[in-house]
Amino acid sequence: MLQEEIRRRNLGTLLRHVHLDGSVSRAALAERMGLNRSTIMALTLELTAAGLVHEEAPTDTGRTGRPSLVVRPETTGVYVLAFDVAVDWLTAARVGLGGVILDRRRAARPRAGADLDRVVEVLAGFGRELHDAAPPEAVCAGVGASYCGMIRPGDGMVRFGPDLGWVDQAFGAELGHRLGLARPVPVGNEAHLGAVAEQRRGAGRGFQNMIYLHGDVGVGGGIIVGGKLLDGDGGYACELGHMVVNPHDGRPCGCGSHGCLEAEVGERALLDAAGRPADLSGRDALRDVVADAGRGDPTARAALHRIGDWLGVGVANLINLFNPGVVIFGGMLRDVYPGAAADQVRTRIAANVLPVARERVRLRTSALGDDATLVGAAELGFSALLADPLGGVVPALPPRR
Amino acid sequence: MLQEEIRRRNLGTLLRHVHLDGSVSRAALAERMGLNRSTIMALTLELTAAGLVHEEAPTDTGRTGRPSLVVRPETTGVYVLAFDVAVDWLTAARVGLGGVILDRRRAARPRAGADLDRVVEVLAGFGRELHDAAPPEAVCAGVGASYCGMIRPGDGMVRFGPDLGWVDQAFGAELGHRLGLARPVPVGNEAHLGAVAEQRRGAGRGFQNMIYLHGDVGVGGGIIVGGKLLDGDGGYACELGHMVVNPHDGRPCGCGSHGCLEAEVGERALLDAAGRPADLSGRDALRDVVADAGRGDPTARAALHRIGDWLGVGVANLINLFNPGVVIFGGMLRDVYPGAAADQVRTRIAANVLPVARERVRLRTSALGDDATLVGAAELGFSALLADPLGGVVPALPPRR
Repeated sequence: MLQEEIRRRNLGTLLRHVHLDGSVSRAALAERMGLNRSTIMALTLELTAAGLVHEEAPTDTGRTGRPSLVVRPETTGVYVLAFDVAVDWLTAARVGLGGVILDRRRAARPRAGADLDRVVEVLAGFGRELHDAAPPEAVCAGVGASYCGMIRPGDGMVRFGPDLGWVDQAFGAELGHRLGLARPVPVGNEAHLGAVAEQRRGAGRGFQNMIYLHGDVGVGGGIIVGGKLLDGDGGYACELGHMVVNPHDGRPCGCGSHGCLEAEVGERALLDAAGRPADLSGRDALRDVVADAGRGDPTARAALHRIGDWLGVGVANLINLFNPGVVIFGGMLRDVYPGAAADQVRTRIAANVLPVARERVRLRTSALGDDATLVGAAELGFSALLADPLGGVVPALPPRR
Repeated sequence: MLQEEIRRRNLGTLLRHVHLDGSVSRAALAERMGLNRSTIMALTLELTAAGLVHEEAPTDTGRTGRPSLVVRPETTGVYVLAFDVAVDWLTAARVGLGGVILDRRRAARPRAGADLDRVVEVLAGFGRELHDAAPPEAVCAGVGASYCGMIRPGDGMVRFGPDLGWVDQAFGAELGHRLGLARPVPVGNEAHLGAVAEQRRGAGRGFQNMIYLHGDVGVGGGIIVGGKLLDGDGGYACELGHMVVNPHDGRPCGCGSHGCLEAEVGERALLDAAGRPADLSGRDALRDVVADAGRGDPTARAALHRIGDWLGVGVANLINLFNPGVVIFGGMLRDVYPGAAADQVRTRIAANVLPVARERVRLRTSALGDDATLVGAAELGFSALLADPLGGVVPALPPRR
């Protein structure tokens, strides 16, 4: 029984390496897992028989001699459905083992009036389409969803989703029901999932302590502590967007408070500071401000300077609190940060962070861009399979019609 | 070998239960550890033979029938030496297994001019005295120290200790050397250790996610995430005192920045707000302000109101970030918080924290008071023994003269 447990754990670990790296040689697996090559071969054979991986000759090793076979995930044969409810769009994707986005559907989301029923209907329709378009022999191994709000772990209940005006909406359960699944779809907060995705596959690879800021209309956060997502007592931690940075004359925030980080650096703050009309919104409008600043427009430059300064106050506070190895700017901050904002952020860090805590921190933009949340949702979908590779490949969706 | 490892781990777990609870029945141990009573009896016999625990009849079970024997730690027979370098004092204590302070020495610390040599000389002298005063058969199982500054893990190097003006001072190594030990004394930041102590033995018992604020001249922090101290990449996390809460017209901070939480709510901020002379300092002066406020003095009340408001801004930010089960006010904040400050803190939390993140958080004052840091240092000293009870009881100090 103990032997059996160890074997299952090793199968999961091997599959996780292959899933995250895309292509790993038997020799590298043996070294990383501390097992001999014959054990790696036996484990690989089991995963191959289960249709999860295959082996092939490496394309080019750059060395002479007989190269070690590489193990690769069955990307097109095993997939999950990943959903993303963001402020601007609804997305669904078929994501293959190895984290490859194989196919996707996207719809613009109206900024108001998107009730649970309508959102679930669109997503479930996309999910069914993606499932039907998959190769006949491919297996759906799981489902996961990202949502721009505070999510109760376990059942995917949206406790607070200000952008869609949702409070206590059973999103995970409804989506599961509409997809014909026996249980709720696992749901995560978009910035939490973005952080997990960046740590596993993006700009945070190799870091155990990491802060991910996800700019959208607001600013969400995902914080990795000791390799794990900071969840807190109820799963509602990481709300760095509601850290008050400007208590004196702060802008009003959607949460009811004033001077929150997201009120000072979110989409509205930047567009207002740049003197854009109040009815303008969205990513393109933000990019216009960044482009204008790049061309030397003084109003746009001043706007980015202001936003960068508040962002710097917030980031400096976070570095003092978390002593992270890396801070990653994602979502719309990926556009805003590299411009004038970066200088302000660095200036604030130099002024406000204790030298010892900042001596090794790196500042980066998201490597996965707008796909970070979707890739994170897919990781949620793959988690059961990776925990128990041979028990896990039961089709998550009913057979195709 | 695997069996032997399991046995050692079980011995450690049993000893930890007894160390933390002081008195645990065999029946309770069996239930908590998921082992049968005969295994518990065998483990207890081993620990008894090693002089670490003893069994006795419970004083009063309130039930009829034969009561389960209780296992208790050998408090007077096995101890550690714990040291505490605080802003106002230098303390050393002999702390018995079970966390009982058996004996202590304390000296006032001059607020300036305390160099490494002098501090280590005083502490080592105290340590030698305490060791010599212990019963002849008692064994010193470890040493641990607390320091009011940023400490490098591993060798107890003080990277930054603004209150004593220390930068990169080899405190752990020097103290170990002066005590005649073969290696550096393990050292922790005072607020980190206070947090660990409160979680294991104080107001944070049973909480996996906890924030401890330690007020002194400044404000330190210890944050427990998922049962473990938040350390960050270099061990320098939790610097909540240097979170900027007042970026506009903040008071200057010892770190070189302005408007840090500790600049707004530390000792100097409160005494200044209460109109006390600039040369007044120390805990008694703070308590006078609190007492005056209690008697209705308007200046003292306004001062506490101001400090409470900034404390509230900081605590609200921390709750949004960490979604903790409990926030604990320690050090001088134990005196300041329960007065007028508590109302301000609650008001800020209600205004600034997302409802979902604050629905279950508790606010408490430290249960261990000024002993929290010393008790935390003792826990550091006990850690090797608890990790391997039978390998660990080698006298940490050389035999007495």
